[in-house]
Amino acid sequence: MKVQVVEDILSANDQIALENRRLFDEKGIFVLNIMAAPGAGKTSLIECTIEALRDRAHVGMIDGDVASTIDADRVARLGVPAVQINTGGACHLDANMTAAALPRLPLDEIDLLVIENVGNLICPTGFGLGEHLKVMIASTPEGDDKPYKYPGMFSAVDVLLLNKVDLLPLLEFDMDYFRRGVDVLNPDIAFFPLSCKTKEGVQEWIEWLLGRWHSL
Amino acid sequence: MKVQVVEDILSANDQIALENRRLFDEKGIFVLNIMAAPGAGKTSLIECTIEALRDRAHVGMIDGDVASTIDADRVARLGVPAVQINTGGACHLDANMTAAALPRLPLDEIDLLVIENVGNLICPTGFGLGEHLKVMIASTPEGDDKPYKYPGMFSAVDVLLLNKVDLLPLLEFDMDYFRRGVDVLNPDIAFFPLSCKTKEGVQEWIEWLLGRWHSL
Repeated sequence: MKVQVVEDILSANDQIALENRRLFDEKGIFVLNIMAAPGAGKTSLIECTIEALRDRAHVGMIDGDVASTIDADRVARLGVPAVQINTGGACHLDANMTAAALPRLPLDEIDLLVIENVGNLICPTGFGLGEHLKVMIASTPEGDDKPYKYPGMFSAVDVLLLNKVDLLPLLEFDMDYFRRGVDVLNPDIAFFPLSCKTKEGVQEWIEWLLGRWHSL
Repeated sequence: MKVQVVEDILSANDQIALENRRLFDEKGIFVLNIMAAPGAGKTSLIECTIEALRDRAHVGMIDGDVASTIDADRVARLGVPAVQINTGGACHLDANMTAAALPRLPLDEIDLLVIENVGNLICPTGFGLGEHLKVMIASTPEGDDKPYKYPGMFSAVDVLLLNKVDLLPLLEFDMDYFRRGVDVLNPDIAFFPLSCKTKEGVQEWIEWLLGRWHSL
């Protein structure tokens, strides 16, 4: 008897992520999965991205948090349809939670969907949601050693936004050391230092995002 | 036939945590489990705690990180025996990892063991290590809404250190909102705002720590 080997079976999460992706493509929706440590500025970045794209995109948002609707409420105040997923303790979003949120959004009216993951530099990397781009936000007060300590996240993403550069004069942050750590892990990563507070660098990120979106 | 019900079985982690705790108590070692988001300042806090206790404690350290030995190296430079646990992707320390690290430390020469958990505001709360005190470090640039978003961690700890208060003049951080969120979750928590950089507030934390330690 020859033992049959079944190869290339997708994990349950990857299977559902693929279905999400098919739906996004069918509807013409470009999807970002925004990942960061707690307090790096995910919601601030989403707010300033929405503001900058106000005339160029119809944005929707899914917000993942262990608890509360604080972030979805912030984005909803900008007139953007927003759905909150409370994970009830889970440390990351997964494709199935995302799929469950989609029917609550007006998908025919959206062309850019921003998914804010749970604040966590480790667990979310293991769970694709069906997104087109994985976006990581680091922030200067977290320190310049984060690529060396959390290599999985820095390796997994398409673009890295280093937020809160307005605080740099007050911090001991060695930008060369930070960049060397990132480049070793992910030589092709796009990198934008910026400040959601002062808006420095935001326009460069927006132009890059539009380029990636419209090259699809 | 009466079905037998087995109650009060400890989880494997709790069982090993209890064994760790017995060893700590037998050796007269007081143990802290330090938890925080990435970049809140766990290692800085450990460094300044070691400096402040230089004449009053023999400190040892276990450092948990997904990768690298950066933090253990920093503490070892202070002349403190330090063991690095690389979790290889796991998002928290557990009691068994801790138990595996203990034989690498000179336990008969230590009376205060500081365990730096993996940078994560969610997962470490579920895994006791055998510690006497659970210590959380929040930091002001993370924002004032963290108690509302990560209630599990704020509920689980004995003491909360709010680090980087030197940056407060540059941030929009509503201390009353932050405190209200903490107090609802954990009315008995001890709270110390401080700065590992300027040393403001560090002495109050040290006095409290010594009080808790010596009341044991």
